[in-house]
Amino acid sequence: MFTFELLKKEKEARAGNLITTHGSIETPSFVAVGTQGTVKALSIEDLRNIGTQVIITNAFHLHLQPGEDLIEKMGGLHRFMGWQGPLMTDSGGFQIFSLGAGKEHGVGKIAPIFPEQIDLGRHLRSKKGKPLVRVDEDGVEFISYLDGSLHRFTPERVIEIERKLGADIILALDECTSPLHDYPYTRDAVERTHRWAVRALEEFQRTSDKGQALFGIVQGGAYQDLRQESATFIAGQDFDGYAIGGSLGRSKEDMYHVLGWTIPLLPQDKPRHLLGIGEVEDIFEVVKRGIDLFDCVLPTRIARTGTLFAKKAQRFRINILNAQFKDDPRPIEEGCNCYTCCNYSRGYLRHLFMAKELLAIRLATIHNLYFLESLMRQIRAAIKEKKFSDLTREWLPPI
Amino acid sequence: MFTFELLKKEKEARAGNLITTHGSIETPSFVAVGTQGTVKALSIEDLRNIGTQVIITNAFHLHLQPGEDLIEKMGGLHRFMGWQGPLMTDSGGFQIFSLGAGKEHGVGKIAPIFPEQIDLGRHLRSKKGKPLVRVDEDGVEFISYLDGSLHRFTPERVIEIERKLGADIILALDECTSPLHDYPYTRDAVERTHRWAVRALEEFQRTSDKGQALFGIVQGGAYQDLRQESATFIAGQDFDGYAIGGSLGRSKEDMYHVLGWTIPLLPQDKPRHLLGIGEVEDIFEVVKRGIDLFDCVLPTRIARTGTLFAKKAQRFRINILNAQFKDDPRPIEEGCNCYTCCNYSRGYLRHLFMAKELLAIRLATIHNLYFLESLMRQIRAAIKEKKFSDLTREWLPPI
Repeated sequence: MFTFELLKKEKEARAGNLITTHGSIETPSFVAVGTQGTVKALSIEDLRNIGTQVIITNAFHLHLQPGEDLIEKMGGLHRFMGWQGPLMTDSGGFQIFSLGAGKEHGVGKIAPIFPEQIDLGRHLRSKKGKPLVRVDEDGVEFISYLDGSLHRFTPERVIEIERKLGADIILALDECTSPLHDYPYTRDAVERTHRWAVRALEEFQRTSDKGQALFGIVQGGAYQDLRQESATFIAGQDFDGYAIGGSLGRSKEDMYHVLGWTIPLLPQDKPRHLLGIGEVEDIFEVVKRGIDLFDCVLPTRIARTGTLFAKKAQRFRINILNAQFKDDPRPIEEGCNCYTCCNYSRGYLRHLFMAKELLAIRLATIHNLYFLESLMRQIRAAIKEKKFSDLTREWLPPI
Repeated sequence: MFTFELLKKEKEARAGNLITTHGSIETPSFVAVGTQGTVKALSIEDLRNIGTQVIITNAFHLHLQPGEDLIEKMGGLHRFMGWQGPLMTDSGGFQIFSLGAGKEHGVGKIAPIFPEQIDLGRHLRSKKGKPLVRVDEDGVEFISYLDGSLHRFTPERVIEIERKLGADIILALDECTSPLHDYPYTRDAVERTHRWAVRALEEFQRTSDKGQALFGIVQGGAYQDLRQESATFIAGQDFDGYAIGGSLGRSKEDMYHVLGWTIPLLPQDKPRHLLGIGEVEDIFEVVKRGIDLFDCVLPTRIARTGTLFAKKAQRFRINILNAQFKDDPRPIEEGCNCYTCCNYSRGYLRHLFMAKELLAIRLATIHNLYFLESLMRQIRAAIKEKKFSDLTREWLPPI
């Protein structure tokens, strides 16, 4: 079961309702990242209390550990994790990129300002001197970071893995390029990703349906013609939704350009997922441009080092380790209804971080995810009342 | 407020009710260890769901970090931690021992079988060559393991710290000797501990009462005459309860001897706490001998490495990392009502440990503490029905 209903639009910002086999997702929605089949440090009960609607796990990581066959034997990913709500699986294209070109170029989705500092001649290799990742027309070969074993992903193999895992929304295998890849390489990779998309869709249609939906992924780096070509091609395939992946250029402006080239070419009646975005400022920008779903490790990752979301703080963050919080009896944020803010003070949280106590990580993660869910509730309500631009001005006043 | 009511006895095993300023404790009871003001990996809600009755934190650790003044300013330890139930503070005698003779001798409370392997001539010193701990008649000087700063604990100073922390039950400063200390040293230490006990009690009586109770600590190593002398002396002081601390010899048999010499000399109408015991077999043995309260890091510490309590397993433990559990859909223990067993399989828990996911530690800790609370409920019910020896035979059938 998979339907997407568009409820309201304010300019390009959309409020919708996505119905999956395991329940519905009000959009726009943050997708919590649970790479290895767990949102780091949180139980399912924590996630329900936070109001998490949907979790994205990773076919690449789960294939390597504990393996899709084991998870299938245990009744599928929902049952294995204990999460009965909507689930997604990323295909692993980005993770293979991270092992390969990402490490080789020393970059993530957005390249550093001074790429000339990066030695592009340095190739990342295994201890035995082999490259960790090798892409060919058929698929991608990579070496496990866990035990050095050799694996091959093809578009068909990834669908097979994702069928066994059984998430509600699955992603096709793509080749994620680096912001530092040149035009010819990026063009070749986009065209390969398109051929892979067709093969993934054929395999998906051929195999038994467990109520799963398949999203295609638009690539093309920060090159306008490649992004437009990719959006047109992928939108022309009968996917249930569309993800925008890969390199988003060298700055936030580049990322907004990429969205500007891509989104108008995607169908209105299908959901759009942006892979890997989670800063508060970015959320307003991508929702404004018509994104329905987005995921990011940032909120949970920064929580683990004591960086906590707060509306009234600079860049919407405080660092709880700062000495100013040591005897602060207030919650992280006044008025926040998360478990952490309802029960613990800034001073106690700081103590837990200083004393390297595990509870610190869980409490901080709960707060950051609750903060985002609360923001998304406000955003959805605002779009429905055509007040999204007012809400944006409230959160991001013009300088 | 502090009263202890003895409800039922079966031979020396006792069922009672201890009423503190922050609520009552049905005895015999396990005391969960929350050294740094948190039971590792658990929230207060977790502890309430587990059925934890009382937590023991540590004046030594909390003095070093974040400091008793800060905790007092934040409204005391109950408010700081968010735990409104009964709280204890250990005085830090054992921790100072761990920094000093314990490290020097390379031993814990029970010495290894072959103590001659230990180089008694090696003195543990700071980087600057100073000993980490120095005991004199007035008290003990030690160097912080956090920042190398010098601290002095005296019996009066520890009462002052514990007053500021504000736990319901506080312990007097003692000198904890090593199982490898000889008779003359142990005798001197016992006598010093007695003089410290008198000073602690005087300081306790002199200072304002916040509804706290003070326990004295019996020492004397594994020497019968010293244990008896110490029990007689400490029992003769007007403490609210009595703890049995320090070295318990070189084997479990030695420990049972120590209890056999000590407990008959303690008053029937006051609670008795055994410091540092938490194995299932030991619990039956110490309850049988008349212990009302005991604490131990073992259940939480072993949980963090995947060792989980189970009634039907050898030594009441399974190691969830064993490959046999990788596709086991059952809970850790059939019939266990803890959050972990109600929601997660052995296979998933093993995956979380293998993938080094933090949730593993919390789920394992919840199970081990719930297991003990459940065992203690059974033990209390059995004593009340004079069926404690039946219950012991059920759990520890004669070989």
